[in-house]
Amino acid sequence: MDAISVIRTKRDRGELSHAQIDWVIDAYTRGEVADEQMSALAMAILLNGMNPGEISRWTDAMIRSGVRMDFSSLGQPTSDKHSTGGVGDKITLPLAPLVAACGAAVPQLSGRGLGHTGGTLDKLESIPGWRALLSNEEMLQVLRDTGAVICAAGDGLAPADKKLYALRDVTGTVEAIPLIASSIMSKKIAEGTGALVLDVKVGSGAFMKNLDDARELARTMVGLGTSAGVNTVALLTDMSTPLGLTAGNALEVRESVEVLAGGGPADVVELTLALAREMLAAAGVHGKDPADALRDGSAMDHWRRMIAAQGGDVDAPLPVAREQHVIPAPASGVLTTLDAYAVGVSAWRLGAGRARKEDPVQAGAGIEMHAKPGDTVVAGQPLLTLHTDTPERFEYAIEALTGGIEVSPAGTTFTPNPIVLDRIA
Amino acid sequence: MDAISVIRTKRDRGELSHAQIDWVIDAYTRGEVADEQMSALAMAILLNGMNPGEISRWTDAMIRSGVRMDFSSLGQPTSDKHSTGGVGDKITLPLAPLVAACGAAVPQLSGRGLGHTGGTLDKLESIPGWRALLSNEEMLQVLRDTGAVICAAGDGLAPADKKLYALRDVTGTVEAIPLIASSIMSKKIAEGTGALVLDVKVGSGAFMKNLDDARELARTMVGLGTSAGVNTVALLTDMSTPLGLTAGNALEVRESVEVLAGGGPADVVELTLALAREMLAAAGVHGKDPADALRDGSAMDHWRRMIAAQGGDVDAPLPVAREQHVIPAPASGVLTTLDAYAVGVSAWRLGAGRARKEDPVQAGAGIEMHAKPGDTVVAGQPLLTLHTDTPERFEYAIEALTGGIEVSPAGTTFTPNPIVLDRIA
Repeated sequence: MDAISVIRTKRDRGELSHAQIDWVIDAYTRGEVADEQMSALAMAILLNGMNPGEISRWTDAMIRSGVRMDFSSLGQPTSDKHSTGGVGDKITLPLAPLVAACGAAVPQLSGRGLGHTGGTLDKLESIPGWRALLSNEEMLQVLRDTGAVICAAGDGLAPADKKLYALRDVTGTVEAIPLIASSIMSKKIAEGTGALVLDVKVGSGAFMKNLDDARELARTMVGLGTSAGVNTVALLTDMSTPLGLTAGNALEVRESVEVLAGGGPADVVELTLALAREMLAAAGVHGKDPADALRDGSAMDHWRRMIAAQGGDVDAPLPVAREQHVIPAPASGVLTTLDAYAVGVSAWRLGAGRARKEDPVQAGAGIEMHAKPGDTVVAGQPLLTLHTDTPERFEYAIEALTGGIEVSPAGTTFTPNPIVLDRIA
Repeated sequence: MDAISVIRTKRDRGELSHAQIDWVIDAYTRGEVADEQMSALAMAILLNGMNPGEISRWTDAMIRSGVRMDFSSLGQPTSDKHSTGGVGDKITLPLAPLVAACGAAVPQLSGRGLGHTGGTLDKLESIPGWRALLSNEEMLQVLRDTGAVICAAGDGLAPADKKLYALRDVTGTVEAIPLIASSIMSKKIAEGTGALVLDVKVGSGAFMKNLDDARELARTMVGLGTSAGVNTVALLTDMSTPLGLTAGNALEVRESVEVLAGGGPADVVELTLALAREMLAAAGVHGKDPADALRDGSAMDHWRRMIAAQGGDVDAPLPVAREQHVIPAPASGVLTTLDAYAVGVSAWRLGAGRARKEDPVQAGAGIEMHAKPGDTVVAGQPLLTLHTDTPERFEYAIEALTGGIEVSPAGTTFTPNPIVLDRIA
């Protein structure tokens, strides 16, 4: 077995054998297959595809490159959610304690943001004292004590994926559905959850810009999860405009706490409840309506215990950026566009996100939105408030909003996209 | 400008701009674009192609990565030949002094063999004392004194190609016509020859297995040479069976000297003369028939002077391998197949070639053929003699010949392929 023959097989539109896949993933993890060989193979996969059997074996080989966690000792069903990433997507924060309050344990291994979409760990780290890095024992203890844990994935989980993901990032080989699906699912299956709900975002602010690509990705991932014994469901959800009224780390924590307190923006509440119902059903937990757990304070109780268990001071004030700048509505009428990608890039430029994975983020930076598409606005009223510690970034952040805001004449009929566009099981 | 955007352009079937090509070749040569980025780009080029404008700019950028030689001070037309590589292809050896004897200077920068095809420098190094490595001044001096020089290309010539070629070799991205053509032509144009004849081999022992691919490669290279001001012509020639009666370093030198002495196998003589006539015509040199220069000893005189000028002892006996093994004809009848690839691999395994570029070669190793396709043979008569210093290799070398020799019943009509299959100008 050698790298060149594996590359040639896929280059010439052949099917990779199980032995070829097992060998190339293992040899790449060990450093025997070089980066320049793996990137040539990744490009051949991107351009020539992989069939379901190849994708499944590829995912399995990445799982076998590391440890597979096991929560059977909990004696409780486990359920997790993964989002493909969007702007203002803080759903994991209210969702994990909410599902825990309804009786399923949520072992959520999360990531940091790169590019215009935020990362769950970056958001939670804006809470004073909160720690993302837990040992396996600490993780299990928090999960046992509070029903939910959100922390960083350890190095032992799918190391082949970690190495390959970093390589794809610099070689123009990210946008391949077989590689995206196997990357996400290898981590989630290795994580050991019994049930999994995928939130596949569609729209300008998402990785998948159209519904067909998103459906293909969702079907591929659901197939991988199901065949690995994880009860997997996917919702396709709208990402043409940001979720909720905030994009940025501490700003999104504040909004999440509002939802846990029974308030918060309607779209965030709707999606949180839809995902919670799917997670509970997939885990086989019935009997409690998540809407009740928001109303009766039990979701909030689980949030406070979960955050405190990881060192977070739930009563401390959240960080606030040093400078604000208000963007007024450019005209009177109906707000018909508030583009997710434009807002995401602008928040990123304000300091909410990072350009390189070693960069720090600003806890207080980001964007507050004072209207959503469909709302009536009056010229000059505050439309957005930009937040940053580094005001020299305002100009660059405002530039990103160009073309992302449209106000149509009063009386224009505007029907917002539904939040949930489709369901794949 | 960044590597990822260049890769994405070609990945998504776009056309690379001149600025993108110039930047990526320069940045790769300087090490700013990483190997894993260039290999992903090479795979995208292999699968999605380049148009003539892109190939031309790519070639030009590789030439500009190093020095371009200039022989205008010679005051004599220059003409060179490049072969895409075949088995028993010793033509450069008699050809260079022959063309010099007819009045064109031949500045030939050659390579070493890798895989089943031999390298001109390896062959010449079997002559005791002969040196492949010359300084630019030495090269010019030999050319001035003897009319021809065959030596190794210096590091300064198309360094981008040197780096890219080594990368393609280990990443399954060799077989791309735009990359093959630009690699060959960047070196030949940088070499500074005024005229160039390409010998594009077609058949089992060649890189190009069919006439259509060979024609496309030839047309691409002729176009590149012509637009760079080099008078370029290509012959497509047969490589279904080895050229001449020998494959191996010293064995091929011996056969080349026979040709220079006015003898030698008919196919070698025919191709040598055809290429010599093309080289002279392309250089605008008329009046002397190369067949006369073989007969009157002037080509041999140029050979002796050229070899001696690089330290070679033209009167010393050539190395002979320590062990021989004879393969008899398996039946009586007409030899209808003596497969070039089988013979090439067998000679390579005997020690005539190298598996990795740092391996040494055996000067005496190789194969003598006692019959050519079309010849009548008698069962048990010697068909091939294998030569090696390491007799433990015989078994492995004989295995390579399996299926490569066919004898048909006496009276079978057999028409050998013509040597020259087509001409592209």
